[in-house]
Amino acid sequence: MDCIFCKIVKGEIDSAKVLENDKVLAFLDVNPVAKGHCLVIPKMHFENIFDITDEILGEVIFLAKYISENLKNSFETEGINLVQSSGSKAGQAIFHFHLHIIPRYQGDLLGHPFDNAEKGKTTLEELKKIADKIHP
Amino acid sequence: MDCIFCKIVKGEIDSAKVLENDKVLAFLDVNPVAKGHCLVIPKMHFENIFDITDEILGEVIFLAKYISENLKNSFETEGINLVQSSGSKAGQAIFHFHLHIIPRYQGDLLGHPFDNAEKGKTTLEELKKIADKIHP
Repeated sequence: MDCIFCKIVKGEIDSAKVLENDKVLAFLDVNPVAKGHCLVIPKMHFENIFDITDEILGEVIFLAKYISENLKNSFETEGINLVQSSGSKAGQAIFHFHLHIIPRYQGDLLGHPFDNAEKGKTTLEELKKIADKIHP
Repeated sequence: MDCIFCKIVKGEIDSAKVLENDKVLAFLDVNPVAKGHCLVIPKMHFENIFDITDEILGEVIFLAKYISENLKNSFETEGINLVQSSGSKAGQAIFHFHLHIIPRYQGDLLGHPFDNAEKGKTTLEELKKIADKIHP
């Protein structure tokens, strides 16, 4: 399979690895939006949130937490955004599951994810109907 | 403690609950940026990614995956963004850990998280030095 992240896992493409175990790998994004912008990926090929297993998803998020703590301790990180995009409509461009860890710094201009989005006008009653559709 | 999400957990503030167990709760954001915009929170009060335990973080992400699948099946969701913000600099406004599940639809105007951010120009050598600082 011609997957760039699978090639990074195998070492066929060089990368700036932060940490790995037998299940997951963290490395730096080659197009960072901030210093220390990491990606955490499973070593096995999963496409997105819909097909990754709970076991491996757990490994991904635990490694992301550990790295977030290290970023806070090693750099002057003021905050962290974790972002996962599943599906091209959500902005996924490489179809191997990946979780972004984006350290935030005093004075950075990244803004807040979806903060400029128009908020839907709704009522609690309407929301309860939607909730019931998601999980009856 | 005067925490709005703790009050939602206790039922002191009404909410559109999607699903819960003894550890975690999913409910609809009252200011949705998309139809079905959910929040998953731990029932215990943790502030952010830096103080939440692995056990509870796992519960949060597993519930988020389950709900993502339900959104895909129940709605015409074309994708999902998961977003977690830790620290006010990252956009956190309520200081009780929460993970956003944002379903994406054909024709929505939400864009891609951080896609307009300026990408840092860097080299693999520089990235490797940064990686080594994050986890020596």
